[in-house]
Amino acid sequence: MNLYTPPLRDIQFVLRHLAGLEEITRLPSWDGTDPETLEAILSEGGKFAAEILAPLNSSGDREGAVWRDGEVWMPAGFRDAYAAFVRDGWNGIACEPEYGGHGMPKLVTTALREMWNSASIAFALCPALNTGAIEAMSLCASTELKHTFLPKMVSGEWTGAMCLTESQAGSDLAAVRTRAEPHTDGSYRIFGQKVFITYGEHDMAANIVHLVLARLPDAPPGTKGISMFLVPKFLVAAGGTPGARNDVRCDSIERKLGIHACPTCTMSFGSGSGAVGYLVGEPHRGLEYMFIMMNDARLVSGVQGLAVAERAYQQAAAYARQRVQGRDVVGGTGSVRIIAHPDVRRMLMLMRSLTEAMRAFALTVAAAADRALAHPDAAERARSRSFVDLMTPVFKGWCTETGVEVASLGIQVHGGAGFIEETGAAQYLRDVRVTTIYEGTTGIQANDLVGRKIMRDDGAAIRQLLDLMQSVLPELAARAGHEFVAIRNALGDGLQALDHSVEHLLERYPADPRVALAGAVPFLKLTGIVTGGWLMARAALAVSTAAPRSDAAATFAAAKLVSAQFYADHVLTLAPALARTVISDPTGLLALDEAHF
Amino acid sequence: MNLYTPPLRDIQFVLRHLAGLEEITRLPSWDGTDPETLEAILSEGGKFAAEILAPLNSSGDREGAVWRDGEVWMPAGFRDAYAAFVRDGWNGIACEPEYGGHGMPKLVTTALREMWNSASIAFALCPALNTGAIEAMSLCASTELKHTFLPKMVSGEWTGAMCLTESQAGSDLAAVRTRAEPHTDGSYRIFGQKVFITYGEHDMAANIVHLVLARLPDAPPGTKGISMFLVPKFLVAAGGTPGARNDVRCDSIERKLGIHACPTCTMSFGSGSGAVGYLVGEPHRGLEYMFIMMNDARLVSGVQGLAVAERAYQQAAAYARQRVQGRDVVGGTGSVRIIAHPDVRRMLMLMRSLTEAMRAFALTVAAAADRALAHPDAAERARSRSFVDLMTPVFKGWCTETGVEVASLGIQVHGGAGFIEETGAAQYLRDVRVTTIYEGTTGIQANDLVGRKIMRDDGAAIRQLLDLMQSVLPELAARAGHEFVAIRNALGDGLQALDHSVEHLLERYPADPRVALAGAVPFLKLTGIVTGGWLMARAALAVSTAAPRSDAAATFAAAKLVSAQFYADHVLTLAPALARTVISDPTGLLALDEAHF
Repeated sequence: MNLYTPPLRDIQFVLRHLAGLEEITRLPSWDGTDPETLEAILSEGGKFAAEILAPLNSSGDREGAVWRDGEVWMPAGFRDAYAAFVRDGWNGIACEPEYGGHGMPKLVTTALREMWNSASIAFALCPALNTGAIEAMSLCASTELKHTFLPKMVSGEWTGAMCLTESQAGSDLAAVRTRAEPHTDGSYRIFGQKVFITYGEHDMAANIVHLVLARLPDAPPGTKGISMFLVPKFLVAAGGTPGARNDVRCDSIERKLGIHACPTCTMSFGSGSGAVGYLVGEPHRGLEYMFIMMNDARLVSGVQGLAVAERAYQQAAAYARQRVQGRDVVGGTGSVRIIAHPDVRRMLMLMRSLTEAMRAFALTVAAAADRALAHPDAAERARSRSFVDLMTPVFKGWCTETGVEVASLGIQVHGGAGFIEETGAAQYLRDVRVTTIYEGTTGIQANDLVGRKIMRDDGAAIRQLLDLMQSVLPELAARAGHEFVAIRNALGDGLQALDHSVEHLLERYPADPRVALAGAVPFLKLTGIVTGGWLMARAALAVSTAAPRSDAAATFAAAKLVSAQFYADHVLTLAPALARTVISDPTGLLALDEAHF
Repeated sequence: MNLYTPPLRDIQFVLRHLAGLEEITRLPSWDGTDPETLEAILSEGGKFAAEILAPLNSSGDREGAVWRDGEVWMPAGFRDAYAAFVRDGWNGIACEPEYGGHGMPKLVTTALREMWNSASIAFALCPALNTGAIEAMSLCASTELKHTFLPKMVSGEWTGAMCLTESQAGSDLAAVRTRAEPHTDGSYRIFGQKVFITYGEHDMAANIVHLVLARLPDAPPGTKGISMFLVPKFLVAAGGTPGARNDVRCDSIERKLGIHACPTCTMSFGSGSGAVGYLVGEPHRGLEYMFIMMNDARLVSGVQGLAVAERAYQQAAAYARQRVQGRDVVGGTGSVRIIAHPDVRRMLMLMRSLTEAMRAFALTVAAAADRALAHPDAAERARSRSFVDLMTPVFKGWCTETGVEVASLGIQVHGGAGFIEETGAAQYLRDVRVTTIYEGTTGIQANDLVGRKIMRDDGAAIRQLLDLMQSVLPELAARAGHEFVAIRNALGDGLQALDHSVEHLLERYPADPRVALAGAVPFLKLTGIVTGGWLMARAALAVSTAAPRSDAAATFAAAKLVSAQFYADHVLTLAPALARTVISDPTGLLALDEAHF
């Protein structure tokens, strides 16, 4: 029932027609790779997801990671799957070739990540965190640290963990209290406790490399006094193999709503003589390094929203095609499969059109990130960077919130069976629910969008995006068919709503940021919905530009048109409502006494 | 952390100012009761909820009901709590005095149910199902059956269970296959398996009375061939005490997303010589009886959405008032409690205004049900009945969907802690998620609303409601203050959106029901949102009509105004968007081949 089929057809469509795969393969960094080779890699990665990872998703949820005496035991099958993941070379796909990585474009790694997270978000979090740690080290660690640790982390033999949060320092990392004391040998001794550490301890790798935020003795208070340290679980012996156990211990793991197979650890550093740590980069710049990397982590979270939505959709559609219940509303005496019921179709198409919009969004941002890195033209690099910066909080916030909505719809399609854990639909909601929280809550993303991304450049980047999106309207107007009328009207209204909201925020924020920020999340959703609508409109244009060359292509085109129109009618329509909320007056809300809530 | 305070102040406000408590106490059935006595009963019922039930909510979730060899063991504390519930006479509050009930107005029992479900929805389901069974028997059972069973069921000594669903017969009860064979002594022998039976087996009562849908040998196929049988767990011996064990057995209980303390049972009837059953009412009229009772069950489900939302709000607000994290956006160097952050306030006020709207909705429908039953004027009875009939699917569908939304927001307010089960916020989402499914999914409610409630009388009842709601607009226009401007504008637009949608459906349904039903759930949400907005507008008018007589009253009035305006700006604004969806063209969606989903 809850197997997984990699959505290679839609991925390929988005890569080729919306995200510019061919252009990316012509950029200097990837010159010589051809689209077909990359598509073959995606096919292999999808196979790994479907065959090795997907079957572990539900057993991993039931069994969960288990803590005993400071050690964590992964559910059955996870060790072997991770070994296969490393053996097949998947771990280093995004990493620099210098340390053994494949340095693939984000366009490709993003599509791979979608599939691995669809198969098992709990599993995929391990390489995701490792990749984040690798990126942080690549950016700022000394050559010596890189040489010692990166090859093993890139291969996946060792994994990385990001140790940021403390019980009093969650969204606000400035409140970090973990201490780092200089040692005579140039290393440091780390003392403190970190909470919510994803894969802080597990039994899949020979060593775990913790990147820990901590304060040096002379550190100024607040955000500018936090440094980053590398603290391995096992110190590295001569020859580069794991040696003595470091003073790092997993005190417990959390009992969580979802991602049960992924250990979320409370980690103690220095309960004895201090955990040996090495400074990464310069003192007091830890938060800065962390934020560089955080942007990538936020894109990964958004991809998780997409990924779980895709899997929830597949399972719901399969169930609706086989479950017989009720009679057809327009008559007939026999029972029908529930996919015949208009509301079941509505739910499925809502799940599907949102998922397709998220995928188009993910790969568009990924392609821009590739251009920002590798385009030969500096102006194009800057434009792409500014697009990625603007879109990162929108993509993270909107796709994770939407992932929750889609997973909940998936339960609903199953009716009573959806509430039974055995069915598997409920797990997707439990799993995806964390994505709107970690790597910065939706509120944090929205504050970043309004307070930084929009205000910093006085709305320049978002106005550029609005212009880009507007440019699709004449094309839509030129097409025949009621689908294009619906899409054009809804997108036009959506763009106008977004435009008004932007002007309103630009005017209101300087006078009172609190007033503007009370509408920040509705504004983020508005931006996400309109961006999705723009991409779905482009998808509709793309499938109807030339006559399809096969029956399969004709089917794909027809379904995509339905999906794009449905998105316009059921999702884009929300844009004017959200704009009204953004523009409403929150004075009473902000003035209400805390005690009266 | 997750304790519960009965929201008596808001309940009292709604009872007195929106639902017409005084008028209800003057109706013949309740003449002589005074509002103060009823309020004292609510206060006692709230105390029971807070002191006896609320502490069991989280331990009951962790422990869960346990099945062993056909028997079900309730979590620690549930047996004692149930005994206290029976001892204190709460079980019979809604039942007829003839069999020992208190026959209280629905206005009061609905408020009590809100509080018990807030405290523990898993516990409250047991008396809720029992009340449903009592009602079915009161309506249609023979005097002999009533005399034998009702006194014990009304006291709560025995509990009732509703055995409808079979694995192939969920939403579509016409597909029921359980058989009833006539026996020479005038009783029947029942054979079949029922699934998803709430409290089908448990250890809190001396006997369990199953109302079972089954087919007689001569039954016509489909909906008109289903009869209702009473099947006790223990046959009743001379003297009215439980005697021999009947051939009824609990085969297993489900592992569910939530309401873990509530056993959801698979029940086998007649695995041996047949379960002894007694026909309730006339043959072949079982579904009809069931549907009479189902309307009440649907109101209970809607109240559960409200109830869980209230509890989730209380916990989130308490957390936001004490959790320190981040600095204030307008400056200051120290950390603040998160309730200072605009987006946290937005989330809390969204939770709260939705909850208040649901409560006003619940008690307004309850009062109408009381009038429909007891008003001396036949026209008023008919008007009230038509209002209740129209509102039942809206209330059930909208309040349960909204309950899920509010519980999810409650997790979000907690940040990372919300995803940890120990916090308790996640349980509310897990528990409330079933309410959009059982007693008819949201899709079923929406089909009932559009296909029956709107079409049956050609829109007469909803047009009457629209007129009633319109009548509040001039009052709003006459009030000073920006709150009233916002409320008036949003409500005016909402009413227009609803009006357009109704006219559209009336025109479209006869031509093609499928086209109309593709927009049925958006229409249901639209109706719920506008009804909630109308009631919040009336609440705003009520608190600002006279100068408050105390500081507490002034505080309540100020907060209610904020909440009503917030609802207008953040919820009612969605109405025009939903209308656009209702009116959109679903032809492509309906035509898409099943295989292409």
